[in-house]
Amino acid sequence: MKKTIAVAILLFSATAAWAQQALWGIPQTISPEIHPDNTVTFRLKAPAAHSVQVTGDFLPPQKIETPHGEFEIPGVASLKAGADGVWEYTCAPLAPELYSYTFIVDSLRMPDPANVYQVRDVGTISNIFIVDGARASLYAVQDVPHGTLSRIWYPSPALGMDRRMSVYTPAGYENGNRRYPVFYLLHGMGGDEEAWPALGRAAQILDNLIAQGKAEPMIVVMTNGNASQEAAPGETHFGLLPPTTALPKTMDGSFETAFPDVVAFLDSTYRTIPDKAHRAIAGLSMGGFHSRHISKQYPGMFDYVGLFSAAINPRGDSDSEIYNNEDEKLAAQFAGAPRLYWIAIGDKDFLYKENEDYRHKLDAAGYPYTYRESADGHIWKNWRIYLTEFVPLLFR
Amino acid sequence: MKKTIAVAILLFSATAAWAQQALWGIPQTISPEIHPDNTVTFRLKAPAAHSVQVTGDFLPPQKIETPHGEFEIPGVASLKAGADGVWEYTCAPLAPELYSYTFIVDSLRMPDPANVYQVRDVGTISNIFIVDGARASLYAVQDVPHGTLSRIWYPSPALGMDRRMSVYTPAGYENGNRRYPVFYLLHGMGGDEEAWPALGRAAQILDNLIAQGKAEPMIVVMTNGNASQEAAPGETHFGLLPPTTALPKTMDGSFETAFPDVVAFLDSTYRTIPDKAHRAIAGLSMGGFHSRHISKQYPGMFDYVGLFSAAINPRGDSDSEIYNNEDEKLAAQFAGAPRLYWIAIGDKDFLYKENEDYRHKLDAAGYPYTYRESADGHIWKNWRIYLTEFVPLLFR
Repeated sequence: MKKTIAVAILLFSATAAWAQQALWGIPQTISPEIHPDNTVTFRLKAPAAHSVQVTGDFLPPQKIETPHGEFEIPGVASLKAGADGVWEYTCAPLAPELYSYTFIVDSLRMPDPANVYQVRDVGTISNIFIVDGARASLYAVQDVPHGTLSRIWYPSPALGMDRRMSVYTPAGYENGNRRYPVFYLLHGMGGDEEAWPALGRAAQILDNLIAQGKAEPMIVVMTNGNASQEAAPGETHFGLLPPTTALPKTMDGSFETAFPDVVAFLDSTYRTIPDKAHRAIAGLSMGGFHSRHISKQYPGMFDYVGLFSAAINPRGDSDSEIYNNEDEKLAAQFAGAPRLYWIAIGDKDFLYKENEDYRHKLDAAGYPYTYRESADGHIWKNWRIYLTEFVPLLFR
Repeated sequence: MKKTIAVAILLFSATAAWAQQALWGIPQTISPEIHPDNTVTFRLKAPAAHSVQVTGDFLPPQKIETPHGEFEIPGVASLKAGADGVWEYTCAPLAPELYSYTFIVDSLRMPDPANVYQVRDVGTISNIFIVDGARASLYAVQDVPHGTLSRIWYPSPALGMDRRMSVYTPAGYENGNRRYPVFYLLHGMGGDEEAWPALGRAAQILDNLIAQGKAEPMIVVMTNGNASQEAAPGETHFGLLPPTTALPKTMDGSFETAFPDVVAFLDSTYRTIPDKAHRAIAGLSMGGFHSRHISKQYPGMFDYVGLFSAAINPRGDSDSEIYNNEDEKLAAQFAGAPRLYWIAIGDKDFLYKENEDYRHKLDAAGYPYTYRESADGHIWKNWRIYLTEFVPLLFR
C-alpha cells in the first residue's frame, strides 16, 4: 500500500523522472558526480541529441569582444555520447568552491534534470554544486546551529509602499532576550532581496562563521535595492513577469534617500542595538554604490562600511541631492572615524579603475580604509569571498 | 556607464539570455502568454529541435495502465515550428487556476527558459503560471498586507535532532503584542517543509483570506514530516543530494510521537494562544494521515482537524504505539467534541475507498465530521482548494 501511494503520487506529478527511477530501481543518471579527487562528471541522458555541452564558471573562461569592450564569459565543454544515450564529461580537478552550470543541448540551454539545486540570477536559472573543503565549507550547510531566514515586509513612507526584505536572525534569537548588532547587506543591479540568500549563501556563511567563533552573532538584513519595486519578481501583485535588469530608480538616489525607513523598521521590530557602533552596511556592485552613498549621507549611522566590487560614481542621469556635496559628506563621515571602511575588488573587474581612482581620492584626503584585492572579476565567487572576510571584522 | 555595468553583469552571468535580450532590444520569446480569453500560448525557441511538446496539468489528462492499477497522468500537446525557429502551441481557454508544465524537446524534459517561476515537487521541477480570477486570485500575490514567511529550526528531543520548519506569521505579528491561534499544516509523502509554501501557495492564500476578512489572522506552521530528515533536501549537512520519496520513518509513528516537540517550540517561541480551542492541524495525503493520528493521540491538543486526500490506515510495517487502540483513542478524541473534523477528497482519488470506509466507521460510532468531495484526484490543485475552504472555518 505504501508503494501504491508513492506510485500514485509520482504518476500524478508531471515530471517525476528522478523519483520514479529511484523508486522503481531503474538505473538513474547521477549528475553532477563529484569524485574524491575533485574532478566532476556531468551526465545527461539525451539519446536523440546531436550535441550536448556544459557551460559554467567551473570551466576556464573564454574572452569575447563586444562594442562595450572585452569581457570574459564562462567556458564551454562538450559531453561525449555513450552507448546508452547518456552523454558525459569529466572536468579537471576543481578547487573547493560553489560552482554553477547549465547544459546546452543542440544549441538550447537547459538545466541538469538530475540536479534540482538551482539559483536564479536576474532572469536566468543555473544549477549549482559545491566542491567542499577550504573556504567552500563555509558555503555548505554544516551540522551547526542554524539561524532563521525570514521574508518580511516593511513600510517605507519615503517610497510610499510596503517592501519586502530577507532577514537572517542568528541561532538563539527567537528564544532569547539578547540584543544584536545589524549588518545591512545589499545586492547588485538586477538583483533583489533573494540574491544574497541564494547566490551569496549568506545564511550558510553566517551560520558557519558564528559557529566557529569567527563572527559575532548578528542580524543580517538583505533589502531590495530597486526603489521602484516592492519585492522580488513574482512576489508582487504585478504577477509572474520576467525579471529584468532594466529597472527604474536603481541608482538615482531613491533607495539611499529611503534607507532610514529600513533602519527604523529594524530598530522598532527586532532586538537590535540601535547605534552606530552596532551597524554595518555593505553591498556588491550597485549595492556597494548604495552602501557608499548611504553611509556618507547618514554619517552617524554606520561604523562599518564594505564596498564589494562597487560602482563608485553616479551615472549622470540623476540630480538627487544624495550625490551632491560629496567632499563635504565624506569629510563628515570620516570625521566620525568609522571603525572599518573596507574596499574589495577583483583584479579583472571592469570597475577596477573606478575603485582605484576612488582609493586615490581617499588617500589624498587622508581617509583610512582597508583594501582587499582578489583575483578574477565581477562575479559571485568574489562576493561570497568578500562576505566571508568582511563579516569576521564586524562588531568586535 | 550604467549600461556598461549592466552589460558586464550579464556577460559574467552564465545564462543571461532573457535579460540580455531585454536589455539589447532583441525580440524575446514570451512564454507562457496568457491571453484575455484565458487561452495560453507556450513558446520555445529551438531551431535545431525535431519535436517540441508541452505537458502539464492544464491539458486534459491521459489514462495509463500500470501494475498498480489505472492512473491519470498529465496530457501532452505538440508545439508547431515557426519560420524563426520558435515553436508554439495555444491551448483551449483555461479555468482560473495555478498550473504547472514542462517542455519535452526531442524526448528530453526541460523547463521553459522564458519562465523563471518554478516549483519543486520531490525531485522534479516544473514551471508554473496562474490564470487569475475566481479562486485562483487567492493563489496570486495581491496588493494586501503580507505576512512573514520564515525558515526556522526547532529542537526535537524526541527525535534527537534540530529540525527545520516554515512558519507563516500574519501581517502585523512582528510589530504587535497580540497572541494568535496556530494552524499546523503538514505535507505529503516525498514533500518537506517547503512544499506548502511553494506548491500549496499557503502564504498567498493566508494573506488574501485574512485581508478579505474571511480568515482569522493565525500562525501557520509547516513542518517536515519525514522523521529521519532534519530539513528539506539541500538544507542539511548531507549536502546537495537528490530528493527522493523513499524516506524512512515517514509513516511509522515517529513523527506523530515527536509532534509535541513542535507544539512546545511554537508555544515557547511565538505569541500563541496555547490551548486546544486555538490549535488546528491538517495535512495532505501522508500529512492527513499524520493529522489524524496526532489528533487522536493527543486528544486535548486540537479543536480543528483536516484530512486532505488523507491516507487513513497504517501501512502494516510499523508496530508503533501510535497506531494501537484506535477505537479507544478516537472515542477519547470525540468525547472532547472537536469543533471541526473535516474530511476532503477528490472523486477520482486512489484513496477514495479508504476514506469512504473511514467515514462509515465514524458514522457508525456517531462521531460528527464535515465531508467535502471535490472533482479530480490526488493533486495539488485539490489541496490548494481544500486549504482555501478549511482556513475560513478555523478559530471563529
